[in-house]
Amino acid sequence: MRTDNKQPDETDEQEPIEILQPMNDKQNGCIGCEGLPPTSYVQQDMEPDKKFTLTLTEGDVYLGKGVLYSGFTIDDKIPGPTLIVRQNEIVEIEVVNTGKIPHGMSIHAAYTQTSKYVGQIGAGETKSVKFKATYPGVYMYHCAPGGHAIPMHTLFGQYGMLVVLPDDGYELEKRGEKPDVELYLIQHEMYKTGKDAITGDPLYVLFNGQLFRYVEDPIKVRPGDKVRIYFLNVGPNIISTLHIVGVVWDHVYWQGHPDNVFVGGQTVLAGPSDSWVIDFRIPEDEGNYLLVTHAFGSATRGAIGVFSASYDHEEVDNVILADGPTYTEEELTEFRELAERIISPYEPTDIDEPYIITPEQQKATVEIIGNSFYPKVLKVPVGTEVEWINEDIFTYAEGEFAGIHDVAVTSGPEMFASPLLGHGEKFSYTFTEVGEYEYICVPHPYMKGKVIVYDPAENSSSQQSGFNIWYALPLAVVGMIVLPIIIRKFRN
Amino acid sequence: MRTDNKQPDETDEQEPIEILQPMNDKQNGCIGCEGLPPTSYVQQDMEPDKKFTLTLTEGDVYLGKGVLYSGFTIDDKIPGPTLIVRQNEIVEIEVVNTGKIPHGMSIHAAYTQTSKYVGQIGAGETKSVKFKATYPGVYMYHCAPGGHAIPMHTLFGQYGMLVVLPDDGYELEKRGEKPDVELYLIQHEMYKTGKDAITGDPLYVLFNGQLFRYVEDPIKVRPGDKVRIYFLNVGPNIISTLHIVGVVWDHVYWQGHPDNVFVGGQTVLAGPSDSWVIDFRIPEDEGNYLLVTHAFGSATRGAIGVFSASYDHEEVDNVILADGPTYTEEELTEFRELAERIISPYEPTDIDEPYIITPEQQKATVEIIGNSFYPKVLKVPVGTEVEWINEDIFTYAEGEFAGIHDVAVTSGPEMFASPLLGHGEKFSYTFTEVGEYEYICVPHPYMKGKVIVYDPAENSSSQQSGFNIWYALPLAVVGMIVLPIIIRKFRN
Amino acid sequence: MRTDNKQPDETDEQEPIEILQPMNDKQNGCIGCEGLPPTSYVQQDMEPDKKFTLTLTEGDVYLGKGVLYSGFTIDDKIPGPTLIVRQNEIVEIEVVNTGKIPHGMSIHAAYTQTSKYVGQIGAGETKSVKFKATYPGVYMYHCAPGGHAIPMHTLFGQYGMLVVLPDDGYELEKRGEKPDVELYLIQHEMYKTGKDAITGDPLYVLFNGQLFRYVEDPIKVRPGDKVRIYFLNVGPNIISTLHIVGVVWDHVYWQGHPDNVFVGGQTVLAGPSDSWVIDFRIPEDEGNYLLVTHAFGSATRGAIGVFSASYDHEEVDNVILADGPTYTEEELTEFRELAERIISPYEPTDIDEPYIITPEQQKATVEIIGNSFYPKVLKVPVGTEVEWINEDIFTYAEGEFAGIHDVAVTSGPEMFASPLLGHGEKFSYTFTEVGEYEYICVPHPYMKGKVIVYDPAENSSSQQSGFNIWYALPLAVVGMIVLPIIIRKFRN
Repeated sequence: MRTDNKQPDETDEQEPIEILQPMNDKQNGCIGCEGLPPTSYVQQDMEPDKKFTLTLTEGDVYLGKGVLYSGFTIDDKIPGPTLIVRQNEIVEIEVVNTGKIPHGMSIHAAYTQTSKYVGQIGAGETKSVKFKATYPGVYMYHCAPGGHAIPMHTLFGQYGMLVVLPDDGYELEKRGEKPDVELYLIQHEMYKTGKDAITGDPLYVLFNGQLFRYVEDPIKVRPGDKVRIYFLNVGPNIISTLHIVGVVWDHVYWQGHPDNVFVGGQTVLAGPSDSWVIDFRIPEDEGNYLLVTHAFGSATRGAIGVFSASYDHEEVDNVILADGPTYTEEELTEFRELAERIISPYEPTDIDEPYIITPEQQKATVEIIGNSFYPKVLKVPVGTEVEWINEDIFTYAEGEFAGIHDVAVTSGPEMFASPLLGHGEKFSYTFTEVGEYEYICVPHPYMKGKVIVYDPAENSSSQQSGFNIWYALPLAVVGMIVLPIIIRKFRN
Repeated sequence: MRTDNKQPDETDEQEPIEILQPMNDKQNGCIGCEGLPPTSYVQQDMEPDKKFTLTLTEGDVYLGKGVLYSGFTIDDKIPGPTLIVRQNEIVEIEVVNTGKIPHGMSIHAAYTQTSKYVGQIGAGETKSVKFKATYPGVYMYHCAPGGHAIPMHTLFGQYGMLVVLPDDGYELEKRGEKPDVELYLIQHEMYKTGKDAITGDPLYVLFNGQLFRYVEDPIKVRPGDKVRIYFLNVGPNIISTLHIVGVVWDHVYWQGHPDNVFVGGQTVLAGPSDSWVIDFRIPEDEGNYLLVTHAFGSATRGAIGVFSASYDHEEVDNVILADGPTYTEEELTEFRELAERIISPYEPTDIDEPYIITPEQQKATVEIIGNSFYPKVLKVPVGTEVEWINEDIFTYAEGEFAGIHDVAVTSGPEMFASPLLGHGEKFSYTFTEVGEYEYICVPHPYMKGKVIVYDPAENSSSQQSGFNIWYALPLAVVGMIVLPIIIRKFRN
Repeated sequence: MRTDNKQPDETDEQEPIEILQPMNDKQNGCIGCEGLPPTSYVQQDMEPDKKFTLTLTEGDVYLGKGVLYSGFTIDDKIPGPTLIVRQNEIVEIEVVNTGKIPHGMSIHAAYTQTSKYVGQIGAGETKSVKFKATYPGVYMYHCAPGGHAIPMHTLFGQYGMLVVLPDDGYELEKRGEKPDVELYLIQHEMYKTGKDAITGDPLYVLFNGQLFRYVEDPIKVRPGDKVRIYFLNVGPNIISTLHIVGVVWDHVYWQGHPDNVFVGGQTVLAGPSDSWVIDFRIPEDEGNYLLVTHAFGSATRGAIGVFSASYDHEEVDNVILADGPTYTEEELTEFRELAERIISPYEPTDIDEPYIITPEQQKATVEIIGNSFYPKVLKVPVGTEVEWINEDIFTYAEGEFAGIHDVAVTSGPEMFASPLLGHGEKFSYTFTEVGEYEYICVPHPYMKGKVIVYDPAENSSSQQSGFNIWYALPLAVVGMIVLPIIIRKFRN
């Protein structure tokens, strides 16, 4: 991320100004908003108060605990950078796509058209949009190239937080105070298959990009500190009820707008893309105050942290951003080498063991769902007919923007490719050659699958199980019938 | 649906007036409601300001994308008709059951006894209830025949929206304005098995009854338009966080009551049967504004729509109802013939491929759950003992109203029937005859299952896998032993 | 539970006073809370206004419908006792651990350090904490021994409700009235495996500890009664949208704080540990008013109740607590003997049928997740290599407090034990002896699993399926070849 507080004469990197559609005579005013703040609409040639550049691509991040994640990133992080602006500032978001596929941007703080400016950005392209941050709050931004790719890229990791600080602050500021510690906190889910991403069954649930990040590195506070959490549940599927053991909220603000204030409470409930501003004090007594989602399945999956309260903490971090951790390329290389497990929603990794079809099971099906194959690795006896069925549904566009898929072998004893499959459409192929078949979906070439075709005869002979009975019994039978004949013969 | 704004002398279709239980002396007044609006209680012989007739039955609807759904409907639609009344109107809901099983009605806007009037309506019966709509809001109504059937009929498709418009309107009306476009919007889930309905794993998530309905037919608006969404998340299991790309809410009203107002925000969180009124403006800039649940697994399942904003849209639909699409019987017949897939929670369709038990697996179990068999189609080797276990729990009533089930063969080589099974109870049957067995649950005759009993010997001979070894090896063995004998014999 | 309203001179059972960390000069005052209520901090030597003793252990409870649950309990109940205090009372919670493993306590009403006082209580220990209930509301308390054990013990059943009644009451009290019936209501989930507990797939969803408790024993009310529900959704995973058929709320209070008031509405949405105070009237008309979570999958799992309204109900229970049912040891013994099913998240019971691996499947994996083995019972052919993989993640502590597990055989033909496994780590063992192997996790000895090793030769001979072909065919072949020889021989 690059943050520029530019003066008008520093705009040499400015994108060519977009020609807007003709507007009516209130074009820079506020249409139909008597009594309401204006929308975020500004002419795209205005000078921004703040400019951010976000770089979208595909890549790996390290989640901690020996786990590497291969997905989609913003500024090489998951979550992407935390963007902070003040109410009524004019904000420019420049979006750079350094990836191999289209990306784009949805900016929830922008109450104006963004899709046509930054919604769809081809590989290698840079686009930009400007808006006025008229409504304070805690907002999500995320990749949104259009259609089916909007949920999929978000599910794969491209999101972050943008906070619009209110001009007059919250109750705390109205009392003439300010927070001692500000934690920008994102809860988000990581999936090991595209199917899990669709059904909402995450493998990990993280705070700010790392498993148990604030258990490993507790947030230092002092009794009496006033703490504010800018909380965004990215999801993208599961609710969070954020809670701190030993704390009752003083004030919480739904979506971070200062007018939506509640008093007290043990939790805040947040669905995907819901947000809260949470104000509380560290109580007078030292000790650990545990931060947790009270949806406890998610807590065991990684969403626990610690506020460590001590009078001895002379220095504390006053601002903790929601950005995921960043690593040097050397560190990432090391993580890749040493990773105990690599996960990815759309390609086989070491944790995707083959799903084995036995000869008796007679059939094999691969679901195509959530821009991935399920199972990602299938092992079938030679001669098996494998059926692929497309369970993705959004089919109004093409390429990356649609849930239209195919199956195209990239290496293997036999090469084949299916036609493009719409929702519910099937393709079958009977594997007659033993070997490993690697395949992709051509419109989404990061989607990878494998079929391992085995010879069950060879397979069974390598097993220790009691198959010998099949050989032994006929032999015994033959022996019982033939041997007397032979014996009799030789007696003759 | 039939909507009548009747005059007193037009009430010839009036149901016989129900005799109420004796009431205390405040019977048409307001008991214990000092400072509160009255409940919805009215004598059942009062004249209604508005009368609606809802017809409940079992049947098919078309979901788009080549998918036909076989379930339960209201006015042959899913969702049923959108009912709109004004605060303090007396409303009559007449419920007609044209189906083969009992249905009924729960009306969330009615703050009065409804269960004993319309809660349980036998096949062919018509019943009616009257109430005064004293609390404004956006409400769900749904089939509710009693007990276990209340959640099940709702999960199978019988629901709709009833809006009680507030006398004084919302903030917009208090400013002397009104919405340019009013969208009544239901998000709802469709299940392919009863088990999925219980565990909350929908196959599709729809806006107003059709997959990506407002992608196929975008909602036309003009920049500056004031738009109101009456939003009801029917569920019946999954949360929704409704969001529009490029929009921040101006005002949202929890449950649609004008006193429960929030300012700003990017999403509204709605659990099953939660509702919101959402007021916003279409920003000044033309383009597409995407409507989506930010629970992104659901978005990929069908819950994406588009507001298409253009200054050129001279005519727009001012009111868009939440009713599911309706089709002529001819159209439905065509859909049935051309459907790429038919789904149903409680009976096998083309997408319910047999679950195959191999001889080695030794056992087969069918769960009875959510008024359906799971798996719906089971294929077992001859001689297999199949066990059914009832995982439904509500067992206080009987017939349609309880989760008490049985297994009764309706066609097949052998006929058998189980006793009625309570929660956790099991029934086993050993299939000794090859063939197809179709069975139902007698108390819920729409519940259908199938067992296909196969001969594994025949089955294996049709496979290409390495089974020939079983024949080849003994032959080889026999040959090795016998042939020398024969040869020697002939040499003799 | 023991509730004492003690006078100062009655404190003979008082725990030794904890020596607090040195505090600053505002130590009994309110640090940084201008304009806010004080936190709950009090010196631990103060006299409590109310004292409660909670006893934590492992044990069985009866869920109704023939189901016994083996898990973790408070005061031998699930949920534990309902604790009710008034705002600004000083409360002491004494926690007794009579179990075999560490337990502890998190008390959401306490806005002060509790973890270091009662967070970790060894087997046989008793600890205590005092706090001032400064914020009114409806709160959860639950076992919280630290780290991984916090979510796990809660998921296994150790939780209850603590209500802090507001000094000035709610709107009802401000109008000079009071509720006729007060229902303290907990919705909570029961799991049959630890894996289900992590993924949030409950077998049962209960109101106050029993399946359909208030269907079996309806809550008696009279038309006109003012009813208050103190509602806590314990979860620990699933949302609830509480609804009553025939009722619109008058006022609801988010988290039970009187300042967070909403008007009207058909539902309240509550994530895990979310709470509401709900005020409504029983309408004028007699009949049944159904209480239900409108997340209807959960409703079928047990979360339905009934308010039975009649003018004839002269006596009603004015206060209904959220405590789970209690039974005498004799009753429990009888339930154990007669139980149709016993469930437990962490040990095999009668409903955990073996997961069978056939020789053709070639491999077997046991996930260790949610302090349990999945599948709990595995049946494999002799010679199979079984792999255990630890999918629990929290590994910062040890023993009960961490998700670090191992596999240690306690009985079986061969004895073996794995090393301790961190997240994602694996252990494999090849079973070469037929028989039953029972094993545990040493750091969590209640975690139990079983491997049944079978001889597939013996296994197959006991099957009725068409295996005889394997014998018949060679016989036929042999016969076809040998018989002519024999015949010819005898003809000679």
